[in-house]
Amino acid sequence: MFEKNLHIAYLLDQYACVLGERHRTVLDYYYNQDFSLSEIAGELGISRQGVRDSIKKAEEELFFLEENLGLYQRAVKVTELGEQLLSTEMSQTARALINELISTAGGSPQQK
Amino acid sequence: MFEKNLHIAYLLDQYACVLGERHRTVLDYYYNQDFSLSEIAGELGISRQGVRDSIKKAEEELFFLEENLGLYQRAVKVTELGEQLLSTEMSQTARALINELISTAGGSPQQK
Repeated sequence: MFEKNLHIAYLLDQYACVLGERHRTVLDYYYNQDFSLSEIAGELGISRQGVRDSIKKAEEELFFLEENLGLYQRAVKVTELGEQLLSTEMSQTARALINELISTAGGSPQQK
Repeated sequence: MFEKNLHIAYLLDQYACVLGERHRTVLDYYYNQDFSLSEIAGELGISRQGVRDSIKKAEEELFFLEENLGLYQRAVKVTELGEQLLSTEMSQTARALINELISTAGGSPQQK
């Protein structure tokens, strides 16, 4: 079976801008716009099997980028550490700097 | 003139693992191993002009990656924010978490 992998959508957020155009296009149709394989085939004028192959290769490119640059894993870890930090006692100034640091590092800052 | 750009060496640290093999090789010879263009030409069996072109394209790939993913800029900013944070009053626990956060985000943590 060929199932949508939600993890891919996160990786796509991180790396879309450096994917080749065809790879970016098929993944965007499939994951962000929720097109079916047939609809993508229609859009691109290729076969469903062609779309399937293209999505598979594009996903491999995302996995390669994440394995080597680890932006997603880094963002998850930064968010975790940030949450631990913000639960400790500290000044408002330090809290603001930590939120900025988390955000710069690609994590999700907390509003308090 | 064709001058070595030190900034490239920093970008190479961040992105070497996702460059194409030829690009990685010429930049490594040129920036990390300090080979001359002639020496690289000898190693790869191509002309000096070929080496020059190859370095130029490889540098463009690095600039493209940095422009779109910004790992180097992010690391610089994270280090800066980390230094500001660590100069404020806080517990040893918070300090350790901040160093881990900076390091995770690709910055340079401080040992205190």
